[in-house]
Amino acid sequence: MVVRNDVNHIDMLNATYDNYDGVIVEVREDMDENVFIALLQTSISQWRQQGKKGVWLKLPINLANLVKPAVTEGFWYHHAEPTYLMLVYWIPKTKHTLPSNASHRVGVAAFVLNSDGKILVVQEKSGVFKGTGVWKLPTGSVEEGEDICTAAIREVKEEVGINTEFVEVLAFRQSHMSFFSKSDLMFVCMLKPTSFDIEKQDSEILEAKWMPIEEYSNQSFVKNRKSFEYIAKICTEKKDNKYVGFTALPTRTATSVTNSYLYSHHQEQLSDSRIQNP
Amino acid sequence: MVVRNDVNHIDMLNATYDNYDGVIVEVREDMDENVFIALLQTSISQWRQQGKKGVWLKLPINLANLVKPAVTEGFWYHHAEPTYLMLVYWIPKTKHTLPSNASHRVGVAAFVLNSDGKILVVQEKSGVFKGTGVWKLPTGSVEEGEDICTAAIREVKEEVGINTEFVEVLAFRQSHMSFFSKSDLMFVCMLKPTSFDIEKQDSEILEAKWMPIEEYSNQSFVKNRKSFEYIAKICTEKKDNKYVGFTALPTRTATSVTNSYLYSHHQEQLSDSRIQNP
Repeated sequence: MVVRNDVNHIDMLNATYDNYDGVIVEVREDMDENVFIALLQTSISQWRQQGKKGVWLKLPINLANLVKPAVTEGFWYHHAEPTYLMLVYWIPKTKHTLPSNASHRVGVAAFVLNSDGKILVVQEKSGVFKGTGVWKLPTGSVEEGEDICTAAIREVKEEVGINTEFVEVLAFRQSHMSFFSKSDLMFVCMLKPTSFDIEKQDSEILEAKWMPIEEYSNQSFVKNRKSFEYIAKICTEKKDNKYVGFTALPTRTATSVTNSYLYSHHQEQLSDSRIQNP
Repeated sequence: MVVRNDVNHIDMLNATYDNYDGVIVEVREDMDENVFIALLQTSISQWRQQGKKGVWLKLPINLANLVKPAVTEGFWYHHAEPTYLMLVYWIPKTKHTLPSNASHRVGVAAFVLNSDGKILVVQEKSGVFKGTGVWKLPTGSVEEGEDICTAAIREVKEEVGINTEFVEVLAFRQSHMSFFSKSDLMFVCMLKPTSFDIEKQDSEILEAKWMPIEEYSNQSFVKNRKSFEYIAKICTEKKDNKYVGFTALPTRTATSVTNSYLYSHHQEQLSDSRIQNP
């Protein structure tokens, strides 16, 4: 963890540099808190001379004893995951330009329509609609690193055991303040079922069934909430082939090691066949 | 912070309860670390008897000294913001079902088309395209609690001083692993300019100008990246009125104290005038 700077003979924290004049330090071994403070001070002094700006300090949870010393030296929290805490420090006297933390949870709601015009609905065992008798679309969270189209298929399989294929994003909703001040993005995905026998998951789902779309739309919980009512209307239009959403095109980004998806309207109408058939 | 339980005469941490058998503790005052550990142990024992499951522990950054004791007692990190760290604990012996942390950063790219068929482009002073001469669409991050449509307008105003109105989301891209294992959602927004004189922001923007859309599309950085090429194609189709994206409808959600927006195709074609004119 500690490297000797051969020119100046100073012990510094081991660091890598990013493209934004930033320094990234990942502490892996425990050390005495006073040694840690001394290393932080020396390192920041050196980085200041080198014109560095932001310092990222990643502390694994087993080194929680080093959080307090880092905060005392002027670091603040950037984000945390179950196994680590990321702290940051800004060397210049200017306002920091560090990128913000992840700000949104992303969810999916699945509109699964069968050839009889019935849609897949569930009653949940917990949450806002617990005990209300409300039939709702299967919903769930998009996991870290998971594609929206994949998440919708996975949630339906997990909750009700139905196999599906992704068709379109029909709409999406952005809302705020729903969970510890974070924002939510909910993507309503149309899926085509390829199996029909429901096997519900007992821990989360109280009941699941195929229901005529009109019966779903006529529930008071749908009619009394503008966004639910509007989504039900879109689903009905889609059933009648009067609506077009965004389809998913696999692409690869410059900075991503995995494929990404571009969601847009009607790529089959665009002329470049290389793009249509990657 | 400490409340006396009148029935059992036990000091416990002050807590509120949520709809999911969860307990929320927000520590506001400093306390001795050993006192804190004793209170945690007593409280968890009581909550276990009450059938509680998840425990949320919010520690402000000035109480960083309590992070280590909480971790020693079995808490782990859930998320962090500049001013606090949220830890969690799961009382039952089952696998936890706590909601995941915010997983996505959300960005906007602005397609600002003027009546001459020229679009607003910028060269940035830092980042991946620094020094490459690449002209790109103005982009930026959606701030916490900010609407996508508002963020696009704000970024264009900040970066180049142009006033705009939101028209549509033309497409969106989800990618992964771009920033400390988080995922990105980037919404390409069409904006209509209502002013035309560029006043660029000097700290982030090297150059800004109006450029014919064909010139933008012909840059090798666009042609060599499938998602950029495809987005340029969509913008060109939009310029020629051959493309329809998702417009924004203000709604209010059951759980939100602010308005939310539902983005979808062609709400003006749907029949309910109550929804069209909220």
